Amino acid sequence: MYNIYGDLISGNCYKIKLLVHQLDIPHNWIHTDIMQGTCRTESFLQKNPNGKVPLLETIDGQCLPESNAILFYLAENTALLPSDRFLKAQVLQWLFFEQYSHEPYIATTRFIVKFLKQAEEQKQSLSIKYEKGYKALDVMENHLQKQPFFAGKQYSIADIALYAYTHIAHEGGFDLGAYHNIQNWFERIQQQPRYLSLEKCHITSHTQ
Amino acid sequence: MYNIYGDLISGNCYKIKLLVHQLDIPHNWIHTDIMQGTCRTESFLQKNPNGKVPLLETIDGQCLPESNAILFYLAENTALLPSDRFLKAQVLQWLFFEQYSHEPYIATTRFIVKFLKQAEEQKQSLSIKYEKGYKALDVMENHLQKQPFFAGKQYSIADIALYAYTHIAHEGGFDLGAYHNIQNWFERIQQQPRYLSLEKCHITSHTQ
Repeated sequence: MYNIYGDLISGNCYKIKLLVHQLDIPHNWIHTDIMQGTCRTESFLQKNPNGKVPLLETIDGQCLPESNAILFYLAENTALLPSDRFLKAQVLQWLFFEQYSHEPYIATTRFIVKFLKQAEEQKQSLSIKYEKGYKALDVMENHLQKQPFFAGKQYSIADIALYAYTHIAHEGGFDLGAYHNIQNWFERIQQQPRYLSLEKCHITSHTQ
Repeated sequence: MYNIYGDLISGNCYKIKLLVHQLDIPHNWIHTDIMQGTCRTESFLQKNPNGKVPLLETIDGQCLPESNAILFYLAENTALLPSDRFLKAQVLQWLFFEQYSHEPYIATTRFIVKFLKQAEEQKQSLSIKYEKGYKALDVMENHLQKQPFFAGKQYSIADIALYAYTHIAHEGGFDLGAYHNIQNWFERIQQQPRYLSLEKCHITSHTQ
């Protein structure tokens, strides 16, 4: 059985929780408190020298960090990762887009506003993050004008990766009111078999 | 034959040039001037709405952006991407590390210092980038203490992705003098069959 180290205040960790629930993958969820610096302890740094969750640990002790690498690993050979070579590359395209053009603006804004409560102190750096975050949302909105999911016609880990922080972007101060395609896409995701909301995730995480 | 849109002042584009040279993949290299804003023209945005190079275009006009997604696509089923599932995930781990924890600090510093020539104006934001960039270099240095290449024992696209900006990090002001494992790894990469230096790349790019 896998050990998965994570903290559900992080959308990066929620991605993994949603995927393992949808694929019904047995696992131990090991709560690793970000705010308490548990990722920076000596024992955790042995597992991931980059000091971040989520982290997947296999039964023989091999460790895999990076949320989107974990998504890819767990979804390979399932319906959530296309086997077609170009479609699979398009899934990766959106996973890299998420980590480079989306998460650094949309996730960190939420962290600063909701958890650090530094909306005032960090006003200037937040304004740049809002600008770049809205640019990422625009790219997503336009793409969803053309197709129902990010890579091809099927729901995949590209959708999971982008959904994680987009559907809670308002907690960082983003206004998604004008993003109708994104909102419709939220609904399509929430209608997927074995969908698990972030809220429910918090409730069930201690019992799995 | 593939069309590859790129600008060799970008390490992200050099990654692709190095890979297609090593794998001897026929392609048209279409120089797309970053400094002149060619990525922001209407015709380019049709191909990549996120407005970035590199971009791969297949013979039937399908477009794939994101340097590391392109690396994965082109390297699949070759010696430069392991077929073993966990090793492949480890390659992805380092590709995501590169885009999230490395490139935003090491590549952008070089761009600001060398191309924008704004080392003075952007002193404050650069100091944060140096701190985070050195942290990424420390993670790499420690990892290379344990193994010769990033994912397992073989040279792979994980090495290409990380090499691209690391070996020119000094152009942004990083001092690699104390990073002996990284320097030895540079040499191992430069000894790979059909290695193409960034310098040579500039010379040959107009004739391929």
